[in-house]
Amino acid sequence: MDGKFFGDLLQTIADRGRALIRPQKGGTGPALSPPDLIGLCQALLSGRGEASGVALAQDVFARYRALGPEDRRQFLATLAERFGPDRKRLEKAIADYAADPNDRRAIELHVAAEPRRQELFRRLNLAPDGTHALVRMREEALRDAAAIPGYEAVDADFTHLFSSWFNRGFLVLRRIDWSTPANILQKIIRYEAVHAIHDWEDLRRRLEPPDRRCFAFFHPQLVDEPLIFVEVALTRNIASSISEVLSEERSPIEADQATTAIFYSISNCQEGLRGISFGNFLIKQVVLELSRDLPGLKTFVTLSPVPGFAGWLARERTKEDGLLSVEERVRLAILDNAAWHADPAVAEGMRPLVESVAARYFLKAKAPNRRPVDPVARFHLGNGARLERINPMGDLSPKGLKQAHGLMVNYLYDLRTIERNHESYAEHGKVAASAAVEKLLTADPAASSSAPVPERA
Amino acid sequence: MDGKFFGDLLQTIADRGRALIRPQKGGTGPALSPPDLIGLCQALLSGRGEASGVALAQDVFARYRALGPEDRRQFLATLAERFGPDRKRLEKAIADYAADPNDRRAIELHVAAEPRRQELFRRLNLAPDGTHALVRMREEALRDAAAIPGYEAVDADFTHLFSSWFNRGFLVLRRIDWSTPANILQKIIRYEAVHAIHDWEDLRRRLEPPDRRCFAFFHPQLVDEPLIFVEVALTRNIASSISEVLSEERSPIEADQATTAIFYSISNCQEGLRGISFGNFLIKQVVLELSRDLPGLKTFVTLSPVPGFAGWLARERTKEDGLLSVEERVRLAILDNAAWHADPAVAEGMRPLVESVAARYFLKAKAPNRRPVDPVARFHLGNGARLERINPMGDLSPKGLKQAHGLMVNYLYDLRTIERNHESYAEHGKVAASAAVEKLLTADPAASSSAPVPERA
Amino acid sequence: MDGKFFGDLLQTIADRGRALIRPQKGGTGPALSPPDLIGLCQALLSGRGEASGVALAQDVFARYRALGPEDRRQFLATLAERFGPDRKRLEKAIADYAADPNDRRAIELHVAAEPRRQELFRRLNLAPDGTHALVRMREEALRDAAAIPGYEAVDADFTHLFSSWFNRGFLVLRRIDWSTPANILQKIIRYEAVHAIHDWEDLRRRLEPPDRRCFAFFHPQLVDEPLIFVEVALTRNIASSISEVLSEERSPIEADQATTAIFYSISNCQEGLRGISFGNFLIKQVVLELSRDLPGLKTFVTLSPVPGFAGWLARERTKEDGLLSVEERVRLAILDNAAWHADPAVAEGMRPLVESVAARYFLKAKAPNRRPVDPVARFHLGNGARLERINPMGDLSPKGLKQAHGLMVNYLYDLRTIERNHESYAEHGKVAASAAVEKLLTADPAASSSAPVPERA
Amino acid sequence: MDGKFFGDLLQTIADRGRALIRPQKGGTGPALSPPDLIGLCQALLSGRGEASGVALAQDVFARYRALGPEDRRQFLATLAERFGPDRKRLEKAIADYAADPNDRRAIELHVAAEPRRQELFRRLNLAPDGTHALVRMREEALRDAAAIPGYEAVDADFTHLFSSWFNRGFLVLRRIDWSTPANILQKIIRYEAVHAIHDWEDLRRRLEPPDRRCFAFFHPQLVDEPLIFVEVALTRNIASSISEVLSEERSPIEADQATTAIFYSISNCQEGLRGISFGNFLIKQVVLELSRDLPGLKTFVTLSPVPGFAGWLARERTKEDGLLSVEERVRLAILDNAAWHADPAVAEGMRPLVESVAARYFLKAKAPNRRPVDPVARFHLGNGARLERINPMGDLSPKGLKQAHGLMVNYLYDLRTIERNHESYAEHGKVAASAAVEKLLTADPAASSSAPVPERA
Repeated sequence: MDGKFFGDLLQTIADRGRALIRPQKGGTGPALSPPDLIGLCQALLSGRGEASGVALAQDVFARYRALGPEDRRQFLATLAERFGPDRKRLEKAIADYAADPNDRRAIELHVAAEPRRQELFRRLNLAPDGTHALVRMREEALRDAAAIPGYEAVDADFTHLFSSWFNRGFLVLRRIDWSTPANILQKIIRYEAVHAIHDWEDLRRRLEPPDRRCFAFFHPQLVDEPLIFVEVALTRNIASSISEVLSEERSPIEADQATTAIFYSISNCQEGLRGISFGNFLIKQVVLELSRDLPGLKTFVTLSPVPGFAGWLARERTKEDGLLSVEERVRLAILDNAAWHADPAVAEGMRPLVESVAARYFLKAKAPNRRPVDPVARFHLGNGARLERINPMGDLSPKGLKQAHGLMVNYLYDLRTIERNHESYAEHGKVAASAAVEKLLTADPAASSSAPVPERA
Repeated sequence: MDGKFFGDLLQTIADRGRALIRPQKGGTGPALSPPDLIGLCQALLSGRGEASGVALAQDVFARYRALGPEDRRQFLATLAERFGPDRKRLEKAIADYAADPNDRRAIELHVAAEPRRQELFRRLNLAPDGTHALVRMREEALRDAAAIPGYEAVDADFTHLFSSWFNRGFLVLRRIDWSTPANILQKIIRYEAVHAIHDWEDLRRRLEPPDRRCFAFFHPQLVDEPLIFVEVALTRNIASSISEVLSEERSPIEADQATTAIFYSISNCQEGLRGISFGNFLIKQVVLELSRDLPGLKTFVTLSPVPGFAGWLARERTKEDGLLSVEERVRLAILDNAAWHADPAVAEGMRPLVESVAARYFLKAKAPNRRPVDPVARFHLGNGARLERINPMGDLSPKGLKQAHGLMVNYLYDLRTIERNHESYAEHGKVAASAAVEKLLTADPAASSSAPVPERA
Repeated sequence: MDGKFFGDLLQTIADRGRALIRPQKGGTGPALSPPDLIGLCQALLSGRGEASGVALAQDVFARYRALGPEDRRQFLATLAERFGPDRKRLEKAIADYAADPNDRRAIELHVAAEPRRQELFRRLNLAPDGTHALVRMREEALRDAAAIPGYEAVDADFTHLFSSWFNRGFLVLRRIDWSTPANILQKIIRYEAVHAIHDWEDLRRRLEPPDRRCFAFFHPQLVDEPLIFVEVALTRNIASSISEVLSEERSPIEADQATTAIFYSISNCQEGLRGISFGNFLIKQVVLELSRDLPGLKTFVTLSPVPGFAGWLARERTKEDGLLSVEERVRLAILDNAAWHADPAVAEGMRPLVESVAARYFLKAKAPNRRPVDPVARFHLGNGARLERINPMGDLSPKGLKQAHGLMVNYLYDLRTIERNHESYAEHGKVAASAAVEKLLTADPAASSSAPVPERA
Repeated sequence: MDGKFFGDLLQTIADRGRALIRPQKGGTGPALSPPDLIGLCQALLSGRGEASGVALAQDVFARYRALGPEDRRQFLATLAERFGPDRKRLEKAIADYAADPNDRRAIELHVAAEPRRQELFRRLNLAPDGTHALVRMREEALRDAAAIPGYEAVDADFTHLFSSWFNRGFLVLRRIDWSTPANILQKIIRYEAVHAIHDWEDLRRRLEPPDRRCFAFFHPQLVDEPLIFVEVALTRNIASSISEVLSEERSPIEADQATTAIFYSISNCQEGLRGISFGNFLIKQVVLELSRDLPGLKTFVTLSPVPGFAGWLARERTKEDGLLSVEERVRLAILDNAAWHADPAVAEGMRPLVESVAARYFLKAKAPNRRPVDPVARFHLGNGARLERINPMGDLSPKGLKQAHGLMVNYLYDLRTIERNHESYAEHGKVAASAAVEKLLTADPAASSSAPVPERA
């Protein structure tokens, strides 16, 4: 019921972008060597760039694309070496500040210390679809970073600019569903990083049923490119395994019958934006969005992998004075048999022990920075979520067994406690956990267990 | 003929923005004093801001809006005083760099010298419609700048961030026409700064006829807000007066019959973006756009005011050894009679003298920085345009007479020579001018003149 | 949050339409006489029309537009005379049906009795923007109908086809607000038929405040053309005069504070669609739409003119045995003085009499078809609305005084009783009225009245 | 560069439609029997329908959907029996017309002969998404037609209304590409009727390469439903086999390098619109669209199946005095061996004979109505296309061999001769064919042939 001038206005960005993605016909004249391309960059930074910036920037990208891998590396290395701050100006600014350390001189110091690459990148951004081209340039460079002398400094500039340009205030949340354009959906298939989407039918099962949702962040300048997306299942209880969620046989429920939203997969899409964090904002905005649309939803949890568990456990099992008792270390050998979970008696027998050990993994084990060992845990706890439940047989796929002996966990997003949890975690490294999880720490896993002791030779 | 997922995607930005422009019901609880609001800003910069940035940022804006003018000034003054760079960290960075001036330490110096305000503004931008709110905050502050101690430092941070966020690569060009939403058109009426639009009928005459065009730049984050716009007349020759262009009696021509596009008005709309230049890009992109749509167009010129002419002339007439001869100074007194142009004989008699003096104004008179005195001239010449023609009776409105004795000029945008002109101007201060204008410098204005000498007492 | 492929798809209709509204350059070759144009129509109905219908139809319209008024009338008269049903086929169909009156033969009879004009119009509709051109053709023809022999038959065909094509199922309801394109708003100004919109500011006062709404029906084929629109005021009580509603001084309320929606103006826009009724559907759909958006709304009423009142009263006052007593007829002469309402004592004195007489006008006076005399009353009562209140001094504009001595009324749309009211009205001519209105019939207007008796000569 | 109010306006149709496609929660109260549903239809035709048409129509559809197959048939049979024309009114109209056969009475005759079903269907169309529901109702009914007494009359009414509502003037051409929403693309996969699309990758190969196009007609009322689509290959010559066109190994060319557009598949999507022809318009509009976008295109041809060839040939081979000589009938037995084409020598040997026989099939064999035997030929020749080339081994898929011994043909659409061809065909049954095809009629297929004689037992 509202005018759409603005949406149409922005459509032109997309059209512009698409037109430019294709290599242009007729090429760009004779190939340039990396030094010549550096010359073009210097021109772009000069007065010529002020007069003809758009055309020059476009030319730089076209010629960069025409370079081979070795020439690209050489070009980036030269950016690292020769487009740092203006040393003379910087030294003068330091001297001035030292003489009279006031705010105005601090500003000049800030400006003088800025590498000239940043202004170069800002001017390259003038090119049609320039942001996209810069993100692709970094994506490639990161793959080759070790082979580019001094690349670290270049990457710091990319990171600084992208953090500003991809400020969360500029992102747009969009629902992804079965009426989304196929070229976007194709990227969802490609970028899914947690539970692979096998084909279009598999994708359809995750988008079309009334109890499924998918949301992504987009940026006005990145044509047809999701930045990050999350897949959500609407249910009546907290799922304890991924097979429950993705089963082909399950019967969908109506969305307004659901009480629980399960975030079962979050995937970053743009390697060129590595280090720019969107996940925190995405989850919180989706929680708000779903709450508004479906007032019946009361619980928002993840169903998350535990990618560091198996590695940690292997290390822990070798320690004499670690978090495991001798007896436990013996019994855990059962997990070395890949088929341990296939026998229900064995599997159920192991459950209390796995739960107990997992509780120690999350609550007691610490990385050198006093944070939990698990990277996914650090992400959700850092967002202010709470470790809600431990699910020993959550993911029995080969990947799930390999990285976590099948373990999955639920993190709870409760908007009322997020801030408090975040602060305790940030300041004291405190891991928020449910009473049930806390209790696992003190319970004796052997007491309730009928798990067989592994046979030993 | 193309999918529009993207355009729709962006529509959500606009909807979001519109929803937020209205003051929210129920208010935001008890009013905060400026110090309390500063406390909220500190929280936003702390770990709490990481967990709940969006909500905190929204709260800061809501409470800022609730402050009175004096409290707002006090708040901004505190931002100036207490959100500069971290002095300790900066001093350490200086010492480290002095010890070993490598690139990595220069980066740390750059980071350490950044005022904390910049991160504060980036986090405030998380709020829904945050960019808009920041632009409005600066707009207001600029009006009051003299009364805000230290505001200059705050403004430097606004300028730095806005330059990055409003990078030309992020702007969108849109045609404004008679099917544009009325709320946008209303702003065109309000922001027109050169030749006032009197009412909706006047606006319609500038948009609807087939030989009229209007284009504006928009930014994805500024809902319904043009940043800058240009009005264009399509004609068969270079107009020498604004009355030709705006006459209500003129007969429109078909667009494809036109050979010439006249840019007769360019207006900036956002005072909060002062100092971020868009005009250069706008003109050039509109030239490209029009060239593509209407291949019959061969000439792209402005019809521009000369706002500094009357002031300069008044000063020059008092100088003994300036650019005017004694006789000229005597004859120029005719212009002191506001009705001088009403008598055709007098007016035509003055034409050669005005042309000659105007040529000197543009080509010989220099501001202290060796640039032309006229600000509009500096803008177009700095863009690489050429001074094409001098029109003594171009604008006989009271404003035109007052600021320039009726003088208007045409600047020519010829894409083939723009870069060369720009460089000559940037490096040597050389003013590009047509042969006809150059010739006026050497011609004797008295020779061809039949202008009466003013009667003297 | 939904894909927009479809909306974009339909945009092409609009673009197509707009492109065609302008007369095409170069014209269409030498002018055709009406007989030649008839020949072209016959070609369109023939096999040639099957092969090249789109081009032929476009040609017919172009050449029709090139005809002068007299030639157009002649063309339409020939359509009337020579494009009726195929008489031979019809006679055979009659004979066949008479011999064996089965359904299949009835179908053939139906087909055979169809004037060939209908197929002609269907094929003309193939032209780009053909529907629009046909509606314009009828609009013009209706103005001239008396001068076109046999036009009535042509009009019956227009009506039949337009009823089918403009079926309510094909219409789209859209809100009109201040972000609606100016070219649409301009038509709202032009087509407003009840309370004239004086200028853009007046329009803005009816669209922009939070307590104003406007809705229109559109048809996918009529580019930029509203078919009918209704203006709504959101209030806290039932307004009894138009000046309350349109006052420039009033203070708007928030939409969610309103309890009452007042439909104070409904205007048809397309004379070429005369006789195709949209108003009934429009009001009901707007009631639904508003109920959904603003659950606080409990009452939906009109504030309606009474265009037949003054005329009826004048006639009634001449009747000896009509609905007025002798004394009433005498006192009503006060209304002959245009300034009667200016003196509050006089005006208030007349109120009971006007109310009483108005009640008789609505409830007792009958047109020959046993329906109320008033056309606006017939419309709303036919929709199932109820006559809710009589407002003697509702519209004191010259028009309001002239047509109804200032009288306005409210009709109530209560979705629960609409169907019942409609049926009583349709079957028995029963006028649904509130108890208050019914009571006016029996009350003695003189009893409570202090109205002065007009002075008599 | 244009406002989009209109496109957005129409988006509401789509949203409305999608909302309704899902069965509504809570159901519609107790099930109705077919007679009760008939009662509801009668109410819809009565005054009640005037007051509450939208709600009643919606109710009829909801209850119809709740019926089982047998009840639906019974309902439709009752529509056939009891909603024909009003016999009394019809008889009076006949009598009146007989007494004075003027145009006005013919109109009344036309109206009186209209089955009441037509008005019923028009009122059912008031329901949200009513058009869609009616099309689905007919689609189902057609599948069951034989089991519904009198259905033929009902179908005539559907056809009459749909012809009017789906007038080509109301259709919208849209390009289908890889950025089209997935739910539309899924239907393209499903509805492709000529060369099956195996999966999404197969679809992508037909949409994404620069030398592929696909276009569909849509109707504003049918949400997300293509009506008909055509697939096009852009090439540099006229393809003679479908494998050339669809080969996975081919190298795409740039669209602007193409000289030829090959329409290799046309599929109707809506069984419920059977008998409403769109293909003719679609091909011609796509020819215009492609000509405008790609001026390098000079030739527009189809690559078409010949579905009637094998059947006709089998019959012809049994005739003593048909179009085949005795010797030919003997040699054609080679085709009975499904592998005949696998041996290149055999295949090439048969080519002249197949060409010659095919020429006779198209040019000499006639159906009883003096038209060609082949349905695809009738379609294209009826559109004014020309039989351009005969390709004996055009489609060696099992389906292609079965229906046409591998034969495919090209029909040429030359806009300059379409009308002439159409008329010759429509009036005289003349088949337009290229000189090369004509020549095949007179050439002696044996002369140039080295085809082996089949071995006989």
